[in-house]
Amino acid sequence: MKVCRRETFNAAHRLFNPAFDDAKNEAIFGKCNNPNYHGHNYTLETWVDGEIDPETGYVIDLKILSDIVTEEVKEAFDHRNLNLDCPEFANLIPTAENIALVIWNKLRAKIDSKYSLEVRLWETERNSIFYDGK
Amino acid sequence: MKVCRRETFNAAHRLFNPAFDDAKNEAIFGKCNNPNYHGHNYTLETWVDGEIDPETGYVIDLKILSDIVTEEVKEAFDHRNLNLDCPEFANLIPTAENIALVIWNKLRAKIDSKYSLEVRLWETERNSIFYDGK
Amino acid sequence: MKVCRRETFNAAHRLFNPAFDDAKNEAIFGKCNNPNYHGHNYTLETWVDGEIDPETGYVIDLKILSDIVTEEVKEAFDHRNLNLDCPEFANLIPTAENIALVIWNKLRAKIDSKYSLEVRLWETERNSIFYDGK
Amino acid sequence: MKVCRRETFNAAHRLFNPAFDDAKNEAIFGKCNNPNYHGHNYTLETWVDGEIDPETGYVIDLKILSDIVTEEVKEAFDHRNLNLDCPEFANLIPTAENIALVIWNKLRAKIDSKYSLEVRLWETERNSIFYDGK
Amino acid sequence: MKVCRRETFNAAHRLFNPAFDDAKNEAIFGKCNNPNYHGHNYTLETWVDGEIDPETGYVIDLKILSDIVTEEVKEAFDHRNLNLDCPEFANLIPTAENIALVIWNKLRAKIDSKYSLEVRLWETERNSIFYDGK
Amino acid sequence: MKVCRRETFNAAHRLFNPAFDDAKNEAIFGKCNNPNYHGHNYTLETWVDGEIDPETGYVIDLKILSDIVTEEVKEAFDHRNLNLDCPEFANLIPTAENIALVIWNKLRAKIDSKYSLEVRLWETERNSIFYDGK
Repeated sequence: MKVCRRETFNAAHRLFNPAFDDAKNEAIFGKCNNPNYHGHNYTLETWVDGEIDPETGYVIDLKILSDIVTEEVKEAFDHRNLNLDCPEFANLIPTAENIALVIWNKLRAKIDSKYSLEVRLWETERNSIFYDGK
Repeated sequence: MKVCRRETFNAAHRLFNPAFDDAKNEAIFGKCNNPNYHGHNYTLETWVDGEIDPETGYVIDLKILSDIVTEEVKEAFDHRNLNLDCPEFANLIPTAENIALVIWNKLRAKIDSKYSLEVRLWETERNSIFYDGK
Repeated sequence: MKVCRRETFNAAHRLFNPAFDDAKNEAIFGKCNNPNYHGHNYTLETWVDGEIDPETGYVIDLKILSDIVTEEVKEAFDHRNLNLDCPEFANLIPTAENIALVIWNKLRAKIDSKYSLEVRLWETERNSIFYDGK
Repeated sequence: MKVCRRETFNAAHRLFNPAFDDAKNEAIFGKCNNPNYHGHNYTLETWVDGEIDPETGYVIDLKILSDIVTEEVKEAFDHRNLNLDCPEFANLIPTAENIALVIWNKLRAKIDSKYSLEVRLWETERNSIFYDGK
Repeated sequence: MKVCRRETFNAAHRLFNPAFDDAKNEAIFGKCNNPNYHGHNYTLETWVDGEIDPETGYVIDLKILSDIVTEEVKEAFDHRNLNLDCPEFANLIPTAENIALVIWNKLRAKIDSKYSLEVRLWETERNSIFYDGK
Repeated sequence: MKVCRRETFNAAHRLFNPAFDDAKNEAIFGKCNNPNYHGHNYTLETWVDGEIDPETGYVIDLKILSDIVTEEVKEAFDHRNLNLDCPEFANLIPTAENIALVIWNKLRAKIDSKYSLEVRLWETERNSIFYDGK
């Protein structure tokens, strides 16, 4: 059985690879390469897979899961510039894919290993990512 | 191929374990332990996995699936108090996890065994559950 | 210019009029008359109408508006039984209409009279109420 | 890691099997058997599963994925009558199941075989289909 | 105080004016001029404005409002071809504007004149109409 | 009768008033005062009020309205830093209120004066603005 907590955060980012020249960054990243950044409302679903505890009826207390997501994700990324403010992206392009990867790793370190973990991240209502560590 | 029918129901519930004392119920269930109950609009997705019937183009007629969900879930739980009105929860804490488990079992008994079955249940727009019987 | 803050709360309620006999309560309120209560996820939009302050660019700081809604509405009604726990409904049937009316009055008393006030309340995804005090 | 692009299209269709007589078509397809057609706003999620390219941070450029979906699905089906205008359904009942199957096959032919492919198609807010080619 | 009931229906239509030649129909209506029709999931909000009845706490019983919308709108338009099946559009182009106008008139005839009436109709998630009879 | 077109754009911004010192900017704008910017997915509804043209059944062709919103709003603000890239905010704090005001003025200049104009702008799923020029 899997349980899910949905949270949101708002951040600025810019997509570019310093190993590319300007023309290649423009060709690959288009409008997302704006040097002055743009931003998104990100929506995150965190899915935890485990057994129901018969004493509580919970797989995991979703308030505890919400606290972990708040500490690890919202405090790190909400109202931040992912490129400038977040060391996780000092050497990593903050695409939705890499943001989902970083979030999964940060949450994996804080959630008991008896649980499997999946995340789904929406960057816009049209673009989203799923990652389960595989 | 999987097909899905979405239905909703509205119910009251209270989370507590009679084996716990008041302090422990309060510590674990917090606001959900209100002795006078609170409630939710539950949203249920029922997913059935099978082959397309070449004569109809259907995996299963979604009107028939809707009728099964209505009879088994909506007639049992809609506009009810899960703790007081529903024998399924006489000895089972009506957490979202246990509600999903009970729904899966009730639907499993009525849907042809040639189909696999999954349910996703939202208790709020932030909390949801997935169960496939495993 | 109007600004809006959206908040949610979850509550149990029962619709009945003690001046009616059982048959009339059943005829008028149907499933909502269940003596053991049922419940909803309520969604509330609070709209405040005023001038933009040129120093801040705000009509009203939405964090302050959110705090007012949290204190007046969420602390009063969230995870409560509207009939049993909330004195506002001791002598008032907790229909969506009356809940919206009570919320408007509670917020009106806390929001500066220089602002006009409107609320929209969803009881389900299909039923909602609008009230502006007129 | 899976990435998703969401697109929409609007189409008319009629469900009937020419091998059935009128009574059987009516019994099986009900209102969907209207000889003058009815229609839907279809919402399509296209999920592509692959590795992150370390140079771009992308699994696949979602603009490219959007272009493929636009060419293969929107240009073929948007503002069309699936029964009359679309050769894919000349001999195939345009149920949501068969539309998802046809879309998956059309996209599979255009998306590099190093990627796995899944589609989710909503015919209404209550009915949807998932297909991954298995 | 206004109360709202949300309902949906699915229909096919074609936009064209028989007084225009083909080139002008194509220029004005574009893809919507497909002679074989296309279709939509329409979402309708019906808003009724009145006083709260102190005996029931209702402005209007939303089950009764739902029944009126079902009889007047869903039975007339759901799973229909608006051009071919619906006499309301025999001489009226079934644009979203005209559909909203026709719905408002049909509902106005069935809802007590003591109530004001407004409708909001979504043709797609991006296009919608508001009409209040003025 | 009013018709509405919904469009989206994604932008970075920072809230601060250069006439305030750092402490006051922090007190008033909180997390939104991050000097490195953050961002949002903005959703815009543009409502135009007018008469139905009996020849077309349209109040206004929503494709034309969409083109105007694309040229005036999306080309100006999408994937931009509102503070740095957009002269409209060189001396105006880019709060949601001021963004809505600027959008209304830009659209008002391009939409025929025979139509009334309203905009609704969502900065997040919880915060939104309505402006009609009054």
